[in-house]
Amino acid sequence: MNGADVLCDTLLAGDVDVCFANPGTSEMHFVAALDRKPAMRCVLGLFEGVVTGAADGYARMADKPAATLLHLGPGLANGLANLHNARRAGTPVVNIVGEHATDHLPYDAPLTSDIESLARPMSAWVGRIGHSDEVGERAAQAIAASRVNGGSVATLILPADAAWGETMRTAPIAPDIVQAGIPDDTVIDHVAARLRNGRRTLLLISGKGLRADALAVAGRIAQATGARMLAQQSNARIERGAGRVPIERVLYNIDACVADLADIDQLVLVGAREPVGFFAYPGKPSAMLPARCEVTRFTERGHDALASLQALADRLGVRRDASVTLAAPSTLLKFDRPSGALTPASIAAAVGRHLPEGAIVCDEAITSGHAFFKHTTGAAPHDFLALTGGAIGSGLPMGTGAAVACPDRKVVCLQADGSGMFTLQSLWTQARERLDVVTIIFANRGYAILHNELKQVGAGVAGHNARRMLDVVDPTLDWVHLAAGMGVEAACVNTLEAFDDVFAMAMRQRGPFLIEASI
Amino acid sequence: MNGADVLCDTLLAGDVDVCFANPGTSEMHFVAALDRKPAMRCVLGLFEGVVTGAADGYARMADKPAATLLHLGPGLANGLANLHNARRAGTPVVNIVGEHATDHLPYDAPLTSDIESLARPMSAWVGRIGHSDEVGERAAQAIAASRVNGGSVATLILPADAAWGETMRTAPIAPDIVQAGIPDDTVIDHVAARLRNGRRTLLLISGKGLRADALAVAGRIAQATGARMLAQQSNARIERGAGRVPIERVLYNIDACVADLADIDQLVLVGAREPVGFFAYPGKPSAMLPARCEVTRFTERGHDALASLQALADRLGVRRDASVTLAAPSTLLKFDRPSGALTPASIAAAVGRHLPEGAIVCDEAITSGHAFFKHTTGAAPHDFLALTGGAIGSGLPMGTGAAVACPDRKVVCLQADGSGMFTLQSLWTQARERLDVVTIIFANRGYAILHNELKQVGAGVAGHNARRMLDVVDPTLDWVHLAAGMGVEAACVNTLEAFDDVFAMAMRQRGPFLIEASI
Repeated sequence: MNGADVLCDTLLAGDVDVCFANPGTSEMHFVAALDRKPAMRCVLGLFEGVVTGAADGYARMADKPAATLLHLGPGLANGLANLHNARRAGTPVVNIVGEHATDHLPYDAPLTSDIESLARPMSAWVGRIGHSDEVGERAAQAIAASRVNGGSVATLILPADAAWGETMRTAPIAPDIVQAGIPDDTVIDHVAARLRNGRRTLLLISGKGLRADALAVAGRIAQATGARMLAQQSNARIERGAGRVPIERVLYNIDACVADLADIDQLVLVGAREPVGFFAYPGKPSAMLPARCEVTRFTERGHDALASLQALADRLGVRRDASVTLAAPSTLLKFDRPSGALTPASIAAAVGRHLPEGAIVCDEAITSGHAFFKHTTGAAPHDFLALTGGAIGSGLPMGTGAAVACPDRKVVCLQADGSGMFTLQSLWTQARERLDVVTIIFANRGYAILHNELKQVGAGVAGHNARRMLDVVDPTLDWVHLAAGMGVEAACVNTLEAFDDVFAMAMRQRGPFLIEASI
Repeated sequence: MNGADVLCDTLLAGDVDVCFANPGTSEMHFVAALDRKPAMRCVLGLFEGVVTGAADGYARMADKPAATLLHLGPGLANGLANLHNARRAGTPVVNIVGEHATDHLPYDAPLTSDIESLARPMSAWVGRIGHSDEVGERAAQAIAASRVNGGSVATLILPADAAWGETMRTAPIAPDIVQAGIPDDTVIDHVAARLRNGRRTLLLISGKGLRADALAVAGRIAQATGARMLAQQSNARIERGAGRVPIERVLYNIDACVADLADIDQLVLVGAREPVGFFAYPGKPSAMLPARCEVTRFTERGHDALASLQALADRLGVRRDASVTLAAPSTLLKFDRPSGALTPASIAAAVGRHLPEGAIVCDEAITSGHAFFKHTTGAAPHDFLALTGGAIGSGLPMGTGAAVACPDRKVVCLQADGSGMFTLQSLWTQARERLDVVTIIFANRGYAILHNELKQVGAGVAGHNARRMLDVVDPTLDWVHLAAGMGVEAACVNTLEAFDDVFAMAMRQRGPFLIEASI
């Protein structure tokens, strides 16, 4: 048996049975092994940003890692931006990077580069396989590393000779996965005492603390203690909608955020990080909290958020059946066919009206996305997946991967046009795999956020040359043609009525569909 | 004056007056400065691989660097694959990467990453600006570093506060550029002696040794000494066509290459590297030369290739007006409208027939590209730019940048469909800038090269699962729609007659055009 077969077997034994891939020559033995391992579902992306972004979206929904298969340093480089997002999301990824055969490396062939240096910034773990005899052990380590801290990027470098070399070490090695626990009693006592001390407290939540069950417990804690609850600004996944405990997010705008948090005396972190400015702006603070605010960490990402919150609630004497305020079903659902201007807000309302229960919403709508969150607190229960690392080009691949993970659930991508162009090749994978993804392109013809950022950094209003860097006009993009080029049916709408009709239709049918909303 | 203005002024003073860009918030002051610096031509790419690939193509033709403007670590990551190609090509690039304000870095905001670690594998020089007072000096260093060794990637990290900070150090600093020289007399003597010793000698040439003037001298040397001449397998730029000294390239296929070079006793490197296998294959050698072959380096990349070859010719007593065999105009030019099957070879012949003098051919046709080189030795004089680092997604951006550098010359991109998808966003920039680029998509519906590589690495013939990783079918891509989505006129042809007509028409008109050739 060769190393590639052992790698496949080890992945399957470690419950990694989906591989998003864009292979090259050095990965051909892994590709050949796929013919012998039908249990491994291999999904081709026509660009590596699709591959890694899909692995991110997949794992956010499957709660287990996918593998990737990338071609040497440049292939890895193309996938790094979405690995950056995965890293910030705390997503488990077994990131497999092919490499020249070990003996070939000293020749510095054209595709040779320093893969470790490229991988490290976006990886919690980087390992290189030295020989085909090591494949099983190293692969098991990579799988285990991907499950550390609730989810990490583990990069496994696979030289071609390790893949093609024969080995007797074929028995699949089970990864040594650390089980998630809860904080020590002393931490629970400390946090409980804080929540009882009468000061203005913010529970800042991220990670699996944003699943519906954990949010219900957090909601009871907040109600019983008078604490405020907020989600981190960007999160891997929030379970929200009617019948669930609603939660707002930390604001993006610095001034608004600082004002919003000005009265907070103490912060309790539940798998979250202290709020900081997404960017720096001249004369504005980097930290969003008042200087007097005391920070207490309750759970790390690697903790079991639900069990931890439940232990805290028990310590506080909060009854498990205490009532908690849930989001009421939106009255928008009762509206007739809407009319008015096609805006991010009116689109959000229309999406909320038609969103089926269990939908997965992947948001990379940037300036157009804020409206969705506001207008859909009472929409049918759904998952909300966001751009976590700010590396644009996340939305379309994330939706692709989420749909692979959850074939019975509708995926809705809210996608800005500027950022959508970074990984538009995702649409082809959606067509190839018949994925049930409906993409809404918010076509505002540019990087709208940057016009505002230009003002925020004090650089004024864009003149002719600067505007040419911010506006995607002359020519405008035609997403209906782009989608058709990759086998995805699409429609362009210019009115709210048309959007509502087309989106409702798209919710009733299955398979990939794209709506270009001209706003 | 702020740092961004000083940066623009320093670039302009260093003869860097084109900037390919995809900026974000941290780069807004540079963008704003563009309104005050109309001499800086800033070209937007809708993905960073377009930006860096265009900078590569630009500098290959302009013989001076462009600047890039990328957004933090993930923006750089997206551009690394084509920086890898630029590095392998020996292309000068002033690669400017925006960064958070220095004071903001410790907060580890979402987009924070280790930019140096990402940049180093693809950069000969990495520098970070510490303060707005340092902008001029560091920018001048970056420009100088980009000109080292005939052309290098110099990455300049620009924190936002260095861009927005005021400075009194505004006088543009001229970059200290090392002038290219020629090898020492002892080296010239040594090489001349080798060429006279009667052994079978190969002159292996790359870099500016492949310009027409240098090739003419090399051709005279080869004729006078009986040496054989070859170009490196992949080169930044070859000046070729009728009336120029023709040169073949080192072969890609290992067995064929080893056989081709089996009788070489000694190798003389003219800005080239020893030939090695592009990939490793089980049981096949990494080095292409026979073990007995002695290797002598004549020129490094940083040498003046023409002056060096001329000095060598003089030392050998080769007369400057000695006749040398030039490529005869192709008889194909006299053919009538061709007929037959639409194949890479017949397309190459048709392209050769209609190629206008001074055309710039950018080749990323992979399996379909070999035919072009063979069939166009006698085409009108043209430049031939190749994929140098094996990182696919080079062709469309390279053509884009070449067209910016040479607005009066026709650019023809030979583009495989699989690799074209990696940076298809280039087409939008071609439309935006009205670039005179005709792209031929060799639509063989997949990564055709990998079927062969699968056999070469001994992994056999692809079964169902493996084929799904190699074939871009189900759905097939429609490049006419893709081009239309980005504002580029296009046509799909299925016959040689149609190709010949459409290509001839495209050569007569100006502006971007795409031909999808279904082969």
